[in-house]
Amino acid sequence: MIDLHTSPTPNGHKVSVALEELGLPYTLKPVNLMTGEQKTPEFLAMNPNGRIPVIVDRGNDDFVVFESGAILIYLAEQTGKLLPKDIKGRSEVLQWLMFQMGGVGPMMGQANVFTRYFPEKIQPAIDRYQNESKRLLTVLNTRLRDHEYLAGDFSIADIANWCWARTHNWSGVDISDLPNLQRWIDLIYARPACTRGIEIPPRPDADAVVSSGREMITK
Amino acid sequence: MIDLHTSPTPNGHKVSVALEELGLPYTLKPVNLMTGEQKTPEFLAMNPNGRIPVIVDRGNDDFVVFESGAILIYLAEQTGKLLPKDIKGRSEVLQWLMFQMGGVGPMMGQANVFTRYFPEKIQPAIDRYQNESKRLLTVLNTRLRDHEYLAGDFSIADIANWCWARTHNWSGVDISDLPNLQRWIDLIYARPACTRGIEIPPRPDADAVVSSGREMITK
Repeated sequence: MIDLHTSPTPNGHKVSVALEELGLPYTLKPVNLMTGEQKTPEFLAMNPNGRIPVIVDRGNDDFVVFESGAILIYLAEQTGKLLPKDIKGRSEVLQWLMFQMGGVGPMMGQANVFTRYFPEKIQPAIDRYQNESKRLLTVLNTRLRDHEYLAGDFSIADIANWCWARTHNWSGVDISDLPNLQRWIDLIYARPACTRGIEIPPRPDADAVVSSGREMITK
Repeated sequence: MIDLHTSPTPNGHKVSVALEELGLPYTLKPVNLMTGEQKTPEFLAMNPNGRIPVIVDRGNDDFVVFESGAILIYLAEQTGKLLPKDIKGRSEVLQWLMFQMGGVGPMMGQANVFTRYFPEKIQPAIDRYQNESKRLLTVLNTRLRDHEYLAGDFSIADIANWCWARTHNWSGVDISDLPNLQRWIDLIYARPACTRGIEIPPRPDADAVVSSGREMITK
């Protein structure tokens, strides 16, 4: 059994979607980011970076895993699913996972910060991050022109990128000229485990929602 | 034999350092970022994201690997070195590798952009990214208080984080109050393969250096 410490954000959803896809039982431990629960001593003992998601594998001596990308690899390797075992197929999935971890996630995250939360409106910073997010989503669109999924069969690379790409409206990025990306986003929305995963954990009272919530959902 | 397409930047150095540490023979293919060689059709055919580093494994059907984090995992798995095989030790290395890929790298990179290259001086953006970089380096410092290396023995997690952390001066981040981080930076500087790796590829003419060059080196 796995404890999942998470919140309704794209990085959190990567793990709830993966757990749902893998059919693994888990105990939900919602973390309230508004009250700073991710910065308590108890939480920092699990993840010194003070960020969700974190899992604790009760079936493996309470082993703790933080960083969404590392959690996806851990779950895939423990189950033998969503990540090929041959060196090339496996590497292709890890390449597109890293593309999300180092590119799509940080850049869309910065677009959200400057578009929505920063105390000042700094148009050059908004433009920089929306343009960079659009460029990265266009790289995905090109890849998906002749690939059904990002790397072979549906994998943790799709889960990681989808959880961010589908929130493009929240970041202020239009994808109407990226048909392959739209096709792939819809393809993954058609997977029941994925649509269940993005509703976990349930969102707190709408009044308290800032960085996540229904507005993030583009469908 | 491996072809290494790279430039003298922290992400490029991760791979040259790893190749030197692993003692793998490779052919250096310098990429001139100033003239946009990373955006040519030939380069985009290898990495559609148009970024260095990229490797081509001539001994594995010319298999191409992009994204520095994915290259580190590929090289470690091909050689059985710098990444433990047991599930816990392996996951700990991957967690700290992801911490660099999603945190230290992107945030120090943005600090560099707003401090050095952006056409306007936007102090709130400079402050944001220097503060976030300092916060992340402080997380490393805390981890290194009671760990010689980031996760078990010297690993790809150390290589990835070191190639960025050692350039803190270039990002305008002072680490004089982070003694454990300084101790670890020096420890890795004492490894001959690491100091060789950060001199590869040789820097172009100093006048043409913008984003890299001797000023990046903090020692």
